Amino acid sequence: MASSTQRVTAAVLIIGNEILSGRTQDTNLSHLAKTLNGYGIQVREARTVPDIEEEIVDALNALRARYDYVFTTGGIGPTHDDITADCVAKAFGVPLVENDEIAAMLRKREAPPEIMAMRLRMARIPEGGDLIRCESGPPGFFIGNVYVMAGIPRIMQSMLASLDGKLRRGETLVSRGINAYVPESHVAKPLGELQARYPHIDLGSYPFYRNDRYGTTLIIRGSDGPDLHAMYDELWRLVEQLDGSPEDEPV
Amino acid sequence: MASSTQRVTAAVLIIGNEILSGRTQDTNLSHLAKTLNGYGIQVREARTVPDIEEEIVDALNALRARYDYVFTTGGIGPTHDDITADCVAKAFGVPLVENDEIAAMLRKREAPPEIMAMRLRMARIPEGGDLIRCESGPPGFFIGNVYVMAGIPRIMQSMLASLDGKLRRGETLVSRGINAYVPESHVAKPLGELQARYPHIDLGSYPFYRNDRYGTTLIIRGSDGPDLHAMYDELWRLVEQLDGSPEDEPV
Repeated sequence: MASSTQRVTAAVLIIGNEILSGRTQDTNLSHLAKTLNGYGIQVREARTVPDIEEEIVDALNALRARYDYVFTTGGIGPTHDDITADCVAKAFGVPLVENDEIAAMLRKREAPPEIMAMRLRMARIPEGGDLIRCESGPPGFFIGNVYVMAGIPRIMQSMLASLDGKLRRGETLVSRGINAYVPESHVAKPLGELQARYPHIDLGSYPFYRNDRYGTTLIIRGSDGPDLHAMYDELWRLVEQLDGSPEDEPV
Repeated sequence: MASSTQRVTAAVLIIGNEILSGRTQDTNLSHLAKTLNGYGIQVREARTVPDIEEEIVDALNALRARYDYVFTTGGIGPTHDDITADCVAKAFGVPLVENDEIAAMLRKREAPPEIMAMRLRMARIPEGGDLIRCESGPPGFFIGNVYVMAGIPRIMQSMLASLDGKLRRGETLVSRGINAYVPESHVAKPLGELQARYPHIDLGSYPFYRNDRYGTTLIIRGSDGPDLHAMYDELWRLVEQLDGSPEDEPV
């Protein structure tokens, strides 16, 4: 049974000044987390860094040593501030090379030499890397355990979808939720006791205020199996005992 | 003039399994980034970590050594998974102590001893820390350069607002933007040249597709001064020369 409970881990590295200035609201992390869990990969950390070479290289090296996979978003366009490919090459200590397949794709649409030269920046991938397909537009790439994708959500999502079935699969975790119409402090002590009896299943509690009532959303997350569902049933009874009108929260 | 251009830096540490599972979409980073820039503080990095003591302590110690400020969100409620205060105390090597003012506030609303005990978890702050006020509900706290706030956006925002004027103020950066109806690769070369002539101002380019046309949003960000506005004017003329129908993008 050891292999069935093996967890495969990932970090997400979000690259871009526009996220750190607050101008752009990132939505890629949440999409990546949910989709990768479906692929059997757990996101354990995320970092957001500016378009500065040293910052990106340092984060890449810290994360790729620590997690099974690193997924990056942003910085793979044709302009001067798109330096992700350069940084990945530097982190791996390999040169950037022009990929024939991407170059041929970019050359299909004619352009003056000066414009083509900039467009061909997107054909550069680290030596030894391979491509991540995209429905429209140039591919991303991967090298070692680092997967490099676009920042634009629609394009990132298309690249991520192309990886389905191609990554090492660990366990897909299952979440179940209950809404309890009980303030968080009222349920806090028994929750701690329940968590102590199921240490391998994460139990989170999130307060809410809805329909003029205070309540707490309780989320459990762990391996799909009898324990998860037994814990859910215990949680439901606990909320009933506290007159908390339990209702199932779809997760 | 040195003091007027001094930058004060910050990192944001987002604490919570629910962000890394993708169940909750973080919106605090973007609010923090914009608000802190107004206070003269630049967010330079963000990390998201799970509710695991070692991860939180390590991230706190890495970030507080590197940036002028660290702002954390999440993990300050009354339940077993709210461990941020414990982790901050551990990172600073000090005990957690019950703060009289928070305890008195929590005691105002009567409750059975068991429930009160859990609620009083929210009164524990690291020894030597002080409070971050909140319009409704218990305060957050700070110790050294680490500011600890709630994860719920409305409460975090109230805490952050209370810090206005109380933090070391550096430069507030100014952003200006232009929408250019030109594909990114067409504008890439002159953009790189413009960036090279204004190395102290960040120039970012972000492709868009709107009204059946490809275009590029160009954002410059830097110190408010003649250079920023000169660069904006140059950018505008550049887009005009490329027949890109420049329009001002409010930032």
